Amino acid sequence: MTLPPALSGGTAGPGALRPLLARVLDALAAGAARRAGPVPAVRPRDLDGQVRAALAGPGRDALDRLTELLAHGAADPADPGCAAHLHAPPLAVAVAADLAVSALNPSQDSWDQAPAATALETALLAELAALVGHLPGQAAGVFTGGGTESNLMGLMLARDRVLGGGVELHGLPAGRAPRIVASEAAHFSVQRAAALLGLGERAVLTVPVDRTLRMDGDALATTLARAVRDGATPIAVVATAGTTDTGAIDPLHRAADLAAQYGAWLHVDAAYGGGALLSDRLAPLLDGIGRADSVALDFHKLGWQPAAAGVFLVRRAETYASLTRRAAYLNPADDEEAGYPSLLGLSLRTTRRPDAFKLAVTLATLGRAGLGALVDACHRLAADAADAVRAEPALELHTPPVLTTVVFRYRPAAADPAAADRVNAVLRRDLLAAGTAVVGRTELPGTGPGRVRLKLTLLNPHTTPDEVGRLLGAVVAAGRRAEARPD
Amino acid sequence: MTLPPALSGGTAGPGALRPLLARVLDALAAGAARRAGPVPAVRPRDLDGQVRAALAGPGRDALDRLTELLAHGAADPADPGCAAHLHAPPLAVAVAADLAVSALNPSQDSWDQAPAATALETALLAELAALVGHLPGQAAGVFTGGGTESNLMGLMLARDRVLGGGVELHGLPAGRAPRIVASEAAHFSVQRAAALLGLGERAVLTVPVDRTLRMDGDALATTLARAVRDGATPIAVVATAGTTDTGAIDPLHRAADLAAQYGAWLHVDAAYGGGALLSDRLAPLLDGIGRADSVALDFHKLGWQPAAAGVFLVRRAETYASLTRRAAYLNPADDEEAGYPSLLGLSLRTTRRPDAFKLAVTLATLGRAGLGALVDACHRLAADAADAVRAEPALELHTPPVLTTVVFRYRPAAADPAAADRVNAVLRRDLLAAGTAVVGRTELPGTGPGRVRLKLTLLNPHTTPDEVGRLLGAVVAAGRRAEARPD
Repeated sequence: MTLPPALSGGTAGPGALRPLLARVLDALAAGAARRAGPVPAVRPRDLDGQVRAALAGPGRDALDRLTELLAHGAADPADPGCAAHLHAPPLAVAVAADLAVSALNPSQDSWDQAPAATALETALLAELAALVGHLPGQAAGVFTGGGTESNLMGLMLARDRVLGGGVELHGLPAGRAPRIVASEAAHFSVQRAAALLGLGERAVLTVPVDRTLRMDGDALATTLARAVRDGATPIAVVATAGTTDTGAIDPLHRAADLAAQYGAWLHVDAAYGGGALLSDRLAPLLDGIGRADSVALDFHKLGWQPAAAGVFLVRRAETYASLTRRAAYLNPADDEEAGYPSLLGLSLRTTRRPDAFKLAVTLATLGRAGLGALVDACHRLAADAADAVRAEPALELHTPPVLTTVVFRYRPAAADPAAADRVNAVLRRDLLAAGTAVVGRTELPGTGPGRVRLKLTLLNPHTTPDEVGRLLGAVVAAGRRAEARPD
Repeated sequence: MTLPPALSGGTAGPGALRPLLARVLDALAAGAARRAGPVPAVRPRDLDGQVRAALAGPGRDALDRLTELLAHGAADPADPGCAAHLHAPPLAVAVAADLAVSALNPSQDSWDQAPAATALETALLAELAALVGHLPGQAAGVFTGGGTESNLMGLMLARDRVLGGGVELHGLPAGRAPRIVASEAAHFSVQRAAALLGLGERAVLTVPVDRTLRMDGDALATTLARAVRDGATPIAVVATAGTTDTGAIDPLHRAADLAAQYGAWLHVDAAYGGGALLSDRLAPLLDGIGRADSVALDFHKLGWQPAAAGVFLVRRAETYASLTRRAAYLNPADDEEAGYPSLLGLSLRTTRRPDAFKLAVTLATLGRAGLGALVDACHRLAADAADAVRAEPALELHTPPVLTTVVFRYRPAAADPAAADRVNAVLRRDLLAAGTAVVGRTELPGTGPGRVRLKLTLLNPHTTPDEVGRLLGAVVAAGRRAEARPD
C-alpha cells in the first residue's frame, strides 16, 4: 500500500512543506509576470473557461498550474494600479506567520486544540483593548472574520441586553419595536445584521450625513427623539469611524452622550478608521472611541494582514453573555475549574483559526510605530492624490480625504448628470477590462442621477505620488474615450 | 527615509517571502522537536506567562520566536497521540496552496478583488453540489467558516422562507411560533443559530436519539405532530449526518419525507459525515442527502484542509434570497449587466478569503478517490481501535464506530457512576497535563451521573493500529493512577 500524502504538522511537516512552498513561490512569480499589471486583461466569461479547463486537468502539477492561474487572475493590491477597495496588500512577514497557522491548524474552540494560540489571542486582545481605550481587566473581545461579523456581534449584544438573552422576538408586544440608529453612510452590514437578528431591515433608522458622509450629531438627536416619540425602543446607536467611501468619522463623543441618554448600546464600526489608532498623528480623530460598548476593527485593512483579521471588542466583559455556552465535549465545567480557559463563549464560531497570530508577529516585528508609519504614508499619499485631482480640470474632487481614500469623478464636457454617471461607470469598467487599473466606483447617498463617483483607496505604502499621477492620467484618458463613444 | 517593509504580492513578493518562509519552517521544526509529543507538558497559566514574555520582547526575530512558541505550544493533530476532536492534520499540499491565497489576498466580495478566485469557487461549488446530489444549474452555495455558520445560514433561509424575508419577528402574532426540530445529539450551533435569529433557544424542539445518538424517525414524526397540535409552525427539520461524538447519521429519507409533509425546510448538518461522500464504500450511509434544501459540509474535518473550509449548499438557488443586496461600491447593476458576477449575495460576510482554493488544489492533486482512501483509512483505524477497546477489560466501548470516532470509557473497579465520571475526567486531564495524549471527553445525552465518556477522533491517516494501542494503554495506566488517588 502506498503511504498517504504528507501532512504539514509534526516533526516531518516542515520537510514536506519545503519543496511545495518553493513551487508555490515560483508559480506566484510566473503568474505575476504573465499578468504584468494590476489585473489581467480578461473578460469574466473567458476567465471562467480558463479556470474550468485548469480544474479539469488533474495531476501532480495541479499546485503549480492552479497557483499560477490564481496569481495571473488576481487583482493584486500590491500593484500601484490596484486601488479600488479596502483591500490591502499584505506584509510578507504577516503572510509568513500565517503559514505557521495553516501548518499547525490550531482551532480556538477549545484549549486542547490550541494551547499557545489561546494564550496569544487573549494577550493580544488586551493590547488592542488598551489601544481603543477600554480599561484592562474589564474589557473582552475576540478575532472575527471582519467588520460584518463584528457589527453583527455588537448588535446582537445590544438586542439581548435590552430584550433579554435567548428572547423569542415573535412573542414580544409590537409596542416595544426595537430600533437601531445609524447614519445613511454606515456600512450595509448594519441592515444585514438587523435582518439576521430578526429585527428586520426596517429596524434601522438612518440619520442624514453631510457632504463628507459624516453623521450630523443634531440629526442623530432628532432621530432618537422621534423614535421614542413613535413608541420605539432605540436599542443601539452605530457610529462609523471611517466610512467605506470617504473615511468620514462620526462625532463619537456626541454619539456616546446620546446613546447614554437613551439607554442605547453604542457600537463603533471602526473597521476602516481603527487603523488610525496606530498613528500618533491620526489617532486623535478617533477620540471618544473608548466610550463605545463595542468596537469593530479590521487589521486586514489598515493593518496589512491577509484576510481575515477582524476584531470585536466590548468595554465590559459582563455584557458579553449571549454566547455563553457549555458544550460537554469542548468546555466541561471541571476543566475550567482546573484552570483550562475556554474562548468558546466569545465567538459566533466553533472551529476558529488563530488569526491573531499573524497580527501578533507583525506588531512584535514592526511595533505600533512601524505600522503607524504605514498608515501615515497612505494618508499622505491620499493628500497628494487629492492635490493631483484638484490640479486636473477634467477631474472633480468630492471632498478632501480624511484617511486614505479619494472620492472624485471624471467631469464630462456635457453637464447632464445621467451622462456623467454613465461615462464614469464605463471608464472604470474599461480600465478593468483592459487590465490597466482597478479603480473604485461608488454612489453618493440619495436618489436620482449624478451620484456616481470614482474612488482611489490607497492602502499600498510603497506606491509613489508619480504612480498615482499615472493612474489619474489613465482615468482621464479612459474618460475621454468613453465620452467620445456612443452608448 | 527607509523603505516600508516588503509586501507578499506583486512581482517582488515571492522573493521577499522566500527567506521568511525558510525561517518559519525552521521554527516549526524546532518547536515540534522541543514539544516532542502531541502537546506540551504545561499548565495553561505557565503557558500564558511564556506567551506574554515572548510578546513583550519585540524585534527582528519575532517571527522565529513566536512561530517556535506556537509550534511548541500546539496540540498537533499530526501526532498520533492527538486524537480528541474533529481537528484534522492538514495535508501539506493544502497548506502550500493556502500560502498563495495569503500572499495574493483576494477577497470574494467583488469580482475586481478576486477575478480567478471568483471563477474557481463557482466551479468548485458546482462539483460539490454534484457530490451531494443537488442538480446542476439549480443548486447554489458558498464557502463558510464551518458548520456553525452553515447551520446558521440554513436556518436563516428556513425562517425567511416561512416568515418572509426581512421580517420583524417582534410584530408577529404569538400563535405562529416558529419551531426548529433537531435531535438531542445535534450540534449546539442549532440552538445558537435559533438565538441569533431571534427565534430563541426554546424554538428548538429536540427529538430523542437511540444509544448510537441517531435520531429516531418515529420520534421525529411525533415531535412534529405535537408541535403542530400545539399551534406552532415547524419551519425546519435539522438532520445530522455524523454527530460530533459517535458519527451517527440520522435517517435522511425519513427526515426528508417528514419535512415535506409539514412544509418545513430540511437542513442536513453533514459537517462531519459529509466526508463519507468522498468514499465509495461509505457514501451510501448518506443516501438521501440530495433531498436536503440545504447542507453543511466541512472539509477541515474529513478533507484535511487547514481551517476554515466550510461549505453551505442549497438545492434550489431561488430559495437563497435573504442575502441579496446591492452595494453601490461592490456590485452595481450595470456591472452585472456587463457580465461581472458577484458572490456578495451568497455569503454572510463581506471581506472573504478564498478558502475554496486549497480544496480545489487538493482535489485536483489527489482526486476524489485519493481523498476517499484517506477517509477509508481513518474508518478502518476506528474499527481497529474499537476492537482494541473491546479486548481490554479495563475499557468499555459505548457503540461500534460509524465513521472515525470511538466512544468508550475507563471502567473503574467500583461501580459508582459519579466516581466513574470523575476518574475518566481526571485521567484525561492528567494525560493532557503530562503532554502524553490529547484524548476527547464528552457526555452522553440525559441527566445525572455516569454519562462521561472518552473519545478518540481518528483523523490522521498515517496513524497505525499499534499507535492507537499505545494510546489506549496510556489511558488505562492513567485511569489506574486516577483511581488510586484520593479526590
